[in-house]
Amino acid sequence: MAKPQNQHFERDVRASFDRQAVMTLMGATLARIATGEIDIEMPFRADLTQQHGFLHTGVVTTMVDSACGFAAFTLMPADAAVLTVEFKINLIAPAQGHTLIARGRVVRAGRNVTVCNGEAWMRTTSGEKQVAQMLATMMTVRERGLVG
Amino acid sequence: MAKPQNQHFERDVRASFDRQAVMTLMGATLARIATGEIDIEMPFRADLTQQHGFLHTGVVTTMVDSACGFAAFTLMPADAAVLTVEFKINLIAPAQGHTLIARGRVVRAGRNVTVCNGEAWMRTTSGEKQVAQMLATMMTVRERGLVG
Amino acid sequence: MAKPQNQHFERDVRASFDRQAVMTLMGATLARIATGEIDIEMPFRADLTQQHGFLHTGVVTTMVDSACGFAAFTLMPADAAVLTVEFKINLIAPAQGHTLIARGRVVRAGRNVTVCNGEAWMRTTSGEKQVAQMLATMMTVRERGLVG
Amino acid sequence: MAKPQNQHFERDVRASFDRQAVMTLMGATLARIATGEIDIEMPFRADLTQQHGFLHTGVVTTMVDSACGFAAFTLMPADAAVLTVEFKINLIAPAQGHTLIARGRVVRAGRNVTVCNGEAWMRTTSGEKQVAQMLATMMTVRERGLVG
Repeated sequence: MAKPQNQHFERDVRASFDRQAVMTLMGATLARIATGEIDIEMPFRADLTQQHGFLHTGVVTTMVDSACGFAAFTLMPADAAVLTVEFKINLIAPAQGHTLIARGRVVRAGRNVTVCNGEAWMRTTSGEKQVAQMLATMMTVRERGLVG
Repeated sequence: MAKPQNQHFERDVRASFDRQAVMTLMGATLARIATGEIDIEMPFRADLTQQHGFLHTGVVTTMVDSACGFAAFTLMPADAAVLTVEFKINLIAPAQGHTLIARGRVVRAGRNVTVCNGEAWMRTTSGEKQVAQMLATMMTVRERGLVG
Repeated sequence: MAKPQNQHFERDVRASFDRQAVMTLMGATLARIATGEIDIEMPFRADLTQQHGFLHTGVVTTMVDSACGFAAFTLMPADAAVLTVEFKINLIAPAQGHTLIARGRVVRAGRNVTVCNGEAWMRTTSGEKQVAQMLATMMTVRERGLVG
Repeated sequence: MAKPQNQHFERDVRASFDRQAVMTLMGATLARIATGEIDIEMPFRADLTQQHGFLHTGVVTTMVDSACGFAAFTLMPADAAVLTVEFKINLIAPAQGHTLIARGRVVRAGRNVTVCNGEAWMRTTSGEKQVAQMLATMMTVRERGLVG
């Protein structure tokens, strides 16, 4: 794993996370911050479900995308921002249980493009079960409108 | 385009949409229901943003995933349910403007697997701008736990 | 669609295509070169099949990836190279017939990132049938090792 | 990891691999066959390159797709066939070196849908380097035309 270029990455991840209104709306919290690794957790909430009572795919996706984005961010320069270029996610089991855990892990951090694996797991009374697998592309933004 | 197998698909799309709690939470509404084609709209909301004040990627994704899922559903048998197997989404511009429009279109409806293109556009005071492009795989579920 | 920045894009696409040894190996040829649009064709060949006698998924993918890459290239500056960041492809029907047609179309050309839709069709004695749908991310490379 | 349902999976993987003409064309061989895990290797060949002299993205993709497909196949019933529904691949470094190694690993094997992670590495004189990361969806086919 690459070494962090920003010695204050933990502080900066927390500050950026706190500015994501949707994380607050969903009741999500940072559970792990390490070099190239982020875990985000969220208690199950009935108002974030789809028609069968499971967490909506988009909610699971929001969580894993954020975990991957912040994982990439831990390895970026101090003055950089992170931008999701794209991701792909497989939904492999219904998101039912009491807590959703989203894990983002950097596969490779390049100067401009960072590739991350992401996973979502549900913690239930009988253990943890994987509910989604993601492969995401993040970009280091050093100037306004880079991707635009 | 394949012909609908379920003559009440419009009624069934509306009923299923109304059971998606997260659509209500986000303030989303069905704007178009046709064979293999669904549009969903949502007014911009500050509590669904990320750290730069744009709609969060996960929110855009939730909308386009729902549009693709319901587009696939319009071509399924009356007793079937739709399940998102996976999707990939490219975020191509910041989601800023007054209304998000998510469009789902069936590329090919198979007996078990349906492939959809999805798009997200923001309506602004100066016109519409595309913000995301999706390619999604939906599955026709005729029995409990097919994918599980 | 953006205007071409390189007035010799057609000549440069042909020159770059001719340097792709794998296109020669597969017997592929350029069938259409326009702004943001490339078609590549390839006669069916038994030595490029998988275990059921259809063209191998990887062969179809190679063709559509090339079509998308060159479509992006038509909109890049004259001194730029194109690099595939990633793509996702759905295989929607067996690739059987006498000619494979791969079509790449630019969805949005940004300064650094270009998003393309790609399609593969098989021409058969009874018409054309779509066999694959791609969504790809290409990058404009202006210096050595940008993505590395 | 799920237990194999087909006690002769190793023999059946070898037989199916030998029928993939494109694997022979590329000079690829099976390097590892285990429950949910397949490695395929291929010496570098100049006639499989793109315009910069690296292995073409489509060639790398063909190899990783095959590794994922056969990895899924090891966990399927004896009378089943495997079909690639879709995959997404990130190209993370140029494919240069003397040997390409493609690794397929099952993330979750369901009754109909199997999700796999895939990786491609190049073995060079100075060690191994990852060149691609894949996330793929495979389907268990028990009857003709299931996906068609």
